[in-house]
Order: sequence, then C-alpha cells, then structure tokens
Amino acid sequence: MAKELKELTSREENYSQWYNDLVVKAGLAEGSAVRGCMVIKPYGYAIWEKMQRQLDTMFKETGHENAYFPLFIPKSFFSKEAHHVEGFAKECAVVTHYRLKNDPDGKGVVVDPDAKLEEELIVRPTSETIIWNTYKNWIQSYRDLPILCNQWANVVRWEMRTRLFLRTAEFLWQEGHTAHETREEAIAEAQKMIRVYADFAEQWLAVPVIVGHKSDSERFAGAEDTLTIEALMQDGKALQSGTSHFLGQNFAKAFDVQFTNREGKLDYVWATSWGVSTRLMGALIMAHSDNNGLVLPPKLAPIQVVMIPIYKGAEELAKITARLDEIAAGLKAKGISVKIDARDNVRSGFKFAEYELKGVPVRLAMGPRDLAGDTIEIVRRDTLAKETVSQEGIVDRIEKLLVDIQDGIYNKALKFREEMTTRVDTYDEFKRVLDEKGGFILAHWDGTPETEEQIKAETKATIRCIPVDAPEEDGVCIISGKPSKRRVLFARSY
Amino acid sequence: MAKELKELTSREENYSQWYNDLVVKAGLAEGSAVRGCMVIKPYGYAIWEKMQRQLDTMFKETGHENAYFPLFIPKSFFSKEAHHVEGFAKECAVVTHYRLKNDPDGKGVVVDPDAKLEEELIVRPTSETIIWNTYKNWIQSYRDLPILCNQWANVVRWEMRTRLFLRTAEFLWQEGHTAHETREEAIAEAQKMIRVYADFAEQWLAVPVIVGHKSDSERFAGAEDTLTIEALMQDGKALQSGTSHFLGQNFAKAFDVQFTNREGKLDYVWATSWGVSTRLMGALIMAHSDNNGLVLPPKLAPIQVVMIPIYKGAEELAKITARLDEIAAGLKAKGISVKIDARDNVRSGFKFAEYELKGVPVRLAMGPRDLAGDTIEIVRRDTLAKETVSQEGIVDRIEKLLVDIQDGIYNKALKFREEMTTRVDTYDEFKRVLDEKGGFILAHWDGTPETEEQIKAETKATIRCIPVDAPEEDGVCIISGKPSKRRVLFARSY
Repeated sequence: MAKELKELTSREENYSQWYNDLVVKAGLAEGSAVRGCMVIKPYGYAIWEKMQRQLDTMFKETGHENAYFPLFIPKSFFSKEAHHVEGFAKECAVVTHYRLKNDPDGKGVVVDPDAKLEEELIVRPTSETIIWNTYKNWIQSYRDLPILCNQWANVVRWEMRTRLFLRTAEFLWQEGHTAHETREEAIAEAQKMIRVYADFAEQWLAVPVIVGHKSDSERFAGAEDTLTIEALMQDGKALQSGTSHFLGQNFAKAFDVQFTNREGKLDYVWATSWGVSTRLMGALIMAHSDNNGLVLPPKLAPIQVVMIPIYKGAEELAKITARLDEIAAGLKAKGISVKIDARDNVRSGFKFAEYELKGVPVRLAMGPRDLAGDTIEIVRRDTLAKETVSQEGIVDRIEKLLVDIQDGIYNKALKFREEMTTRVDTYDEFKRVLDEKGGFILAHWDGTPETEEQIKAETKATIRCIPVDAPEEDGVCIISGKPSKRRVLFARSY
Repeated sequence: MAKELKELTSREENYSQWYNDLVVKAGLAEGSAVRGCMVIKPYGYAIWEKMQRQLDTMFKETGHENAYFPLFIPKSFFSKEAHHVEGFAKECAVVTHYRLKNDPDGKGVVVDPDAKLEEELIVRPTSETIIWNTYKNWIQSYRDLPILCNQWANVVRWEMRTRLFLRTAEFLWQEGHTAHETREEAIAEAQKMIRVYADFAEQWLAVPVIVGHKSDSERFAGAEDTLTIEALMQDGKALQSGTSHFLGQNFAKAFDVQFTNREGKLDYVWATSWGVSTRLMGALIMAHSDNNGLVLPPKLAPIQVVMIPIYKGAEELAKITARLDEIAAGLKAKGISVKIDARDNVRSGFKFAEYELKGVPVRLAMGPRDLAGDTIEIVRRDTLAKETVSQEGIVDRIEKLLVDIQDGIYNKALKFREEMTTRVDTYDEFKRVLDEKGGFILAHWDGTPETEEQIKAETKATIRCIPVDAPEEDGVCIISGKPSKRRVLFARSY
C-alpha cells in the first residue's frame, strides 16, 4: 500500500485531520509561505477548472457576460455602505505604499516611506463597491438595464483561522453583479442564480443542498435578502456552499446610481450579487470521500478512467498496452478522459492505492489471463466493488457505469442527509440531537435575533437557512414558546 | 452615423488618442477609480476569454497543467535573487496592514495601527519567487521533474504612466513556470513556448511577429536569456507581445532547490518562465483597426456575423427575421457565432456604424427586395467591400469568407511590416529612417551595452531583439564601426 495512503488519518480518528491530510496527500492544495494563503496544486486546480467551465456555461446560458474589475478598492468606497464596511473592514489587506528601496543598513529591501499612497487601497474582499462605482457611468436610462455581469477573480479576507479551501485568506471565486429596473426583476434574478447553484451542486458535485433564506443576522453585509445553498458534510456539520443576494437599492444609493425609468422619472437601480468559491472544493471533498481517499463524481474528475496493465516483461506489456490503447481510444471518442499508467518503477498495488487516494471513478486492470480470455477487471471507486467482465462492449459499459457512479454518489449523500435531518420540538431534544448525532435540525423559531443568538451562544448551532420550500406548519419556538409558522434549519457549521 | 463613431479621433490626427477612443467607445475597457487600474468591459473580456481558451489549449497540448499560487509575496523573498529585486522593487504595491477600524474622529474608516504585519507583503508583479519557494517542497529527485505549471492570474506593477491594455498597474496574464533536470531541457522549453506564442499571434491574432533574443540590458530581471515576440503597430512602433525566459539555475539557487540527478548527485534545478498578458489586446487593436473602429480577426471575434433586418412594420420584420433565423441556424451548426439585431429604436445606419466600431467581421443585411429576390447583402469589415449575393449557399460562402478575412488581415499586416522594415548601414540613415518612416530597422551592432545605450539615448530606439533566424552576414556596427556578424532589430516601442 502506498506510503501516502498509510499516513492518511481516518475519519473516525480525527475528521479534521483526515480532511487536511486528504487535501495535501491527494495533491489538491497545500499551505504556503504566506499566512492563510494556499497553493492550489495541478490536480486540485484541474477539478476547479471543471467547476469553472460548467458554471461559466450555466451563467452564459442565463444571459450573463464576464468582465473584470480592479483588484483594489479605495478605502473611502468602503465607508459608503454602512453595513458593508462593518462586515468587511475588520479583515482586509491594506496597501499603503507603492515602492520598496534598498535597506540603507544592509542587505534586503524596505518599504520606501516616500512612496506612501494618498489614499490606502483595500485588496477586494468582494467587489460591490468598486463595481457600483463603475456602473454609475454605464447606466443612464432603463434602456441600459439590465446589466448582467460576472467576474472570475481572487479575493482576500484576512481570516484568523484558516483551513485549506474552506477558509483561506485569499480564495478564488466568481461574483455576479447585476443591475435592474425593478425590485421584482432583481428578486427574480437572485432566485434564478441560487437555483443555478443548487442545480450545479446536485448535478455536478453530487451534493444535495437545501435552498433557503438567511436570517437577518446571517445576511450578507449590505443585502436586503440572502439566499443560500446549505450542504451537509459527513461529520454532520453544514457547509454554506453558495449565496445569492438581493441588495435592494443599497449600493445604488451609496454610489448614487440613478436611471430614467419607463415613466421618465429618476429612480435608483436595483441590484443583486451572487458567488461561489473554491470553498466548493471543500464541499466536494468532505461530502463524498472516505478513508481510502477522495471519491470524485465522474463529471468533475480530471481523470475518469485509469487503466493499469499487470505484466511481466516488455513483450507482455506491449500486448496488454495495445489492447488497452484500443479501449482507451473508444472511451476518448465518447469524451471520457483516460489515463494508462504503465510505470515500471512502482508495483500495481501502489498504483491501485494511489488512484483510490486521488478518487479516480473507474479503475481497469488487465493482466495476461485477461488478455487471453478477453476479460478485464473493473473497480468502481465509490463502492470499491470489483468485477471481471468481458472486453466485449466494455466502452458502453463504462460509459453507463460513470453515470451510475455519479447517481450513486449523489443518492448516497442524499440518503445520509435524510438520515441526518431531525425534526425536534423542544430545546432539550435540540441539544441532545446536536450533541449525539449532529446533522440538520428542523425546529420552530420565533423569528427574533435574541432567540437565535441564545441558541448560537449555548450550542454553537446557527440557523443555516429558512428553507424556501418549508411547508407551513403551526408550532411554537423551542426557546420562547412563541408561535411559529414554519420550521427553520439549524446546524453547527464550517 | 453613430454618435460614438463620429467622436472617434482619426489615426492620422492623433494615433494615441485614436487608440484610447477606440478602446473606450468600442466597449473594450475603461479607466477606473483606482489609479492605473482598468475595468475590462464585457466585449473586451469576451475577446480575452477567446485568447485564454486557445492559449490554454495550446499549453495543455504541450504538456502543461494549471495551478494557482498566492497573490502575496513576503518582502524577504524579493531580496533572494539580486537582479529580480532590482527589477521589480521600485514599482510594487505593498500590503502593510490587515485591518481597518472606525475613524475615532468621525465618519469613515482608517487603517488600524495595531494591525501591522510583521513582514510586509508584496502584491505579485510576477511569481518566480513564491513559486520557487513552493517547488522546493515538490522536488527531491529527477523523477519529480519536469514540473510544467502555468497560472492564469492578475499581477500588479506600479507603473507611473499607464495606457489601457498596454501598460496598466494591474493586468491579467498567464505565467508558465517550469523546472527541469538539465540546462538543455530548460532551453528547449523556453524555445518551445516562444514558438507557441508566435503561432498564437500569427494564427489567431493575425499579427506577424519576429522571434528573437533580448539583448543583455533588455532581459528579464533574473533570466539568463529572454526570448521575445515583437510585433509592429500601424504607427511604426514595436510592441513586445510575449516573452519566454531561460532562468538558468538562478531561482533554484536563490531558494535552494536541489535534486538528486540520474547520477545520484545533488544539483540545482533548471528553470524557465514565460508569459503573455492583456497587452495582447493592445496588439490586436493597434495592428488591424482603422478610423471606422476595430477590425477583429474572425477567430477571436465574440460575434463573427451580425445580421440586420431592414424593414417597415411588424409583418415585414417577421418575414425577414424568419429567413435570417434559418441562415443563423445554418451558421451556428458550423460553430459560427451570430447575432441578429432587430432593435427598432435605432436606424440601420446606426447599427452598421456600431458593428463597424465593434469590428464584427461579417455584416449581413436583408430588406424586402432581398427577401423577394432571394438575395442578401454581405459586407466584410476588413475591406468594407459590399456585395449582394444569392441566399443559396450563403452558409458555405460565409464560412469561407471568415477564413478569407482571417488570412486577409494577417497578410495585410505582414505586407505592412515588410514595407516598414528597413535595412540601414549608417547611423545617419538609421536616424533618418526612424524619424521619417519609423518601423523596424535592421542594422549591425557591435554587441556592447554602451552602443545600445547611446542609440537609445539619442533616438529613443531600442534593440527589440536579435532575431533567431537572422542570416549570418559580415558588417560593421553603425556606431562604433566594429565588426558584426548579424543585423539586430531596432525600433521605437510601446
């Protein structure tokens, strides 16, 4: 068994360590010399690229265009929206100078005090302010609306406690920023985009999500409403995986963006913003992987099928590889990515463990007996089920298997979430379920921030969302006993 | 004629203003509230995306993988390679603090003096240092080599005089960083990648380029050799459009990256880096466009064909649009991007001018007489040649026309460059050609930095490169009269 794999901490032993080990050992990402900033390694980046490609397609299908706005935001812009500055000022990277000079006292360089900026620049933690300052020049009339822009970018939030992919000082994301004539149109846009995220999470990441509204206290800084998709990880904690905000006219007012409407009157523009980030990599990893390594859904796997020849000597290798090449050609013609690993400096067992660690959905092995008998061994990564089958029709079989694996991973995660979702009616039960089982808890809440805060302080559980499809149901708040019309979703979270 | 177009300065009047007007009015980019940083608008970004997509494909075909490294570089890393720090320290954005706080004296926020970083962070101007500090952990043995990584990223160089796309404080680029066992392999990699850039420039941007080596004084800070592609703009100035550096063992030594080679001995790793940026947008615009606006090569045009119905009333519009839809479907089936512009609030003449400004390669117009006679009007953007042709076979005709336009634009640029390349044998002739004609000048040079510096100081012309395919030829330096074996390429440049 591979050395790397042996060293992988088990989930049961230490979930958090398992996650970190897995990210590093599977070659997805690692820490860097810069506090809280990660290096995304080629294998991890290849998965992110697949996510980007698909999301970008979905954004364009819904009428959005990409653009690019400056990395830096003048400090004064931050103050223009009161909640926004409150939300982001405490954890931002500030550029104060624009030059270094040789250290007069020796080797190295120091900041040149003569090169101080007149106004400090903030490295963007999110781009509403710089973008709305730009939109001001783009919008005069309703004919200039809607504006439907998206940006793929890096952002920086100076988090004190960081974890690879889940919470890093710098991360990669996309941020959509749209401008609309009416409140209704902006609300519809925010709803449309959270559905795009939900579809992407379920159909590509194979992660089922709950769509809902954030409570007032969990809302984005500057939003009137925040929609979220919430996923459940295998340790029973929730992961907020994407958000879509209805920003009302807050940023338009802060940056004085008015337009002449269809009635010829001046009005402020309505806005949304929405984003997902490299945090989705964390969701993907934590939702599906096991003690042998990653389990990647085929739609996002950089390598979908790996083939390993089992051979002694060059002649046998040549024969087996020739047959594997034929199968690989058939798979590639169907758009399936394939790798043949014929390295001779490591044993097959090492290779098996390595591709399990890397989460390759399908592993094929062929030895001399397979060659003689027209058979091939197939192992699917999600269940590790192994079978030896005829080579006849193998391409079609694998194509179907990849679909089965994608579905299987999703269904497993969905089943887990259903088992881990509990309806409780008392606070005692709430606390007991939280401690003994974890997961999602559906409970009645009186809608006040005081109750929400008490629960958070006492249990570390927060309201993940008020699900959009929660049925109306008479009940009473588990804390205050006041009447409630629907259950909200609680969990401890990342 | 469109208002925007009327306001486009002509090239003859003021080339520099023409360029800036064009970038802004065609909706490619604009300035921002942040000094020297630009906003890349959707139409400009769509062209950049097409460039990225093709370059990324070419990088992957040559065995490279994408990864992502931190935005910030610890200040001390800069000092580790002496030339590198010299080259970049004087124009960099420096992060010194990680928090803002409410201004005790009033509204707004100020830098929190208690949140000063122990070591300042530089916003990357290029990533050799942070990447080689990372590679140190990735490389132990020759088996770990080569590493062939590329990164798509933003970088910041605090330029004092900026111009949209050509020279901005923040710009987007890709930077390849490779690590090799041997000097020969690294040199071959640097050569391979400059050829990729040359192919891309010629086949996609339709911009002919000269491939050559930079002189010692124009070399990248930290490189042993810099290869460049040099393009000629319509005003007779050169634009460096991409570079590929053989870095020797400089960064490996600076960051102590050693490996066990095939002989079992420790050696330093050999390196290359190579990059192209949003500057290519400037090359694209300045190489082909005219006083009516952009001229985009079809391979990079976001809209390749625009169709404009000429109609009176809804009934006529419906009939014409139905026919245009059929043609559009045929074009889309061949992968050609099409837009039908049926807006009724602007005149056709306005639309014609608008798509000329935006450089759409092919414009089709259909009126009631065309409908009756099964004809359609075709205008190609590069020559503005207009003809009315039968609708029969129109899809194939347009497909072929797009190829013709791509070739036509390239050939026109190549012819221009040939006319604008002059061989001179005396310094008087050199100065006369430079002032009266501009363009590329091929002249003998004695190889010394002193001569190079004198020419630069007296004429503002620099050695763009020592062309790789320059024939050996006996001559004498135009300044010193010392013997020279080949002509080098001089020009004034951007």
